[in-house]
Amino acid sequence: MNAKHIFDKHRMRLILLIGAAAMFTFTLDSLAQEKSQMIRIAKIRIDSAQLENYKIAVKEQIEAAVRTEPGVLMLYAVYDKKDPTSVTVFEIYADEKAYQSHLQTAHFKKYKTGTQKMVKSFELIDVDPIALGAKER
Amino acid sequence: MNAKHIFDKHRMRLILLIGAAAMFTFTLDSLAQEKSQMIRIAKIRIDSAQLENYKIAVKEQIEAAVRTEPGVLMLYAVYDKKDPTSVTVFEIYADEKAYQSHLQTAHFKKYKTGTQKMVKSFELIDVDPIALGAKER
Repeated sequence: MNAKHIFDKHRMRLILLIGAAAMFTFTLDSLAQEKSQMIRIAKIRIDSAQLENYKIAVKEQIEAAVRTEPGVLMLYAVYDKKDPTSVTVFEIYADEKAYQSHLQTAHFKKYKTGTQKMVKSFELIDVDPIALGAKER
Repeated sequence: MNAKHIFDKHRMRLILLIGAAAMFTFTLDSLAQEKSQMIRIAKIRIDSAQLENYKIAVKEQIEAAVRTEPGVLMLYAVYDKKDPTSVTVFEIYADEKAYQSHLQTAHFKKYKTGTQKMVKSFELIDVDPIALGAKER
């Protein structure tokens, strides 16, 4: 083994070490990003006479929020087929700050005020992820 | 107006008509695709002594299903922060057929049999979308 071989071996080790460190940092970053996410389930009971108006209002709010707010990652609003006045919204924000900022937007305030009399009750459930699996869109 | 002008005008009308028809077909396709989707919320109560084992099993099942089954579009499993034995899974399948095929897979059967004694009760709620808003991933 000559000097060049030894140099190559050390250089290869260094490259591998840098590579491993980079991968490790990337993994930590991804985890940190996921960890900061705020996930919530909103269960909302709607006045049956106001259901169609409520749907229009929540749809408008969701479209504006996802389109204009970088920190609003997902807002999926659905209603029970067997009990249509029972609405569930599955919400993901980038972090707590993104959620607080969402509450201050014009579209959220319009939704909140506009639907106040349509909503009979609501419950907000903070959740943590076990597994979030989805196809790429 | 000469013969060439008349021909051009008719040709332009034909192109516009074909274009409009193509756009209309595309819109109908998109609607049909969304309409056929099967969306469900599963509410699952886990035996507290088995919670960590259950999380591992459901995570494995979700990763396999989303990776290998074209019709499994989304499986988001979360647990209540204040009541960790209360698990919710938000499920989207391309259609009823994709869901039926999912039930026959080895990973689903393994999950179902493996978690039978961990699950204290569960409720499946079929839902329809009001608005599904999400950032592109």
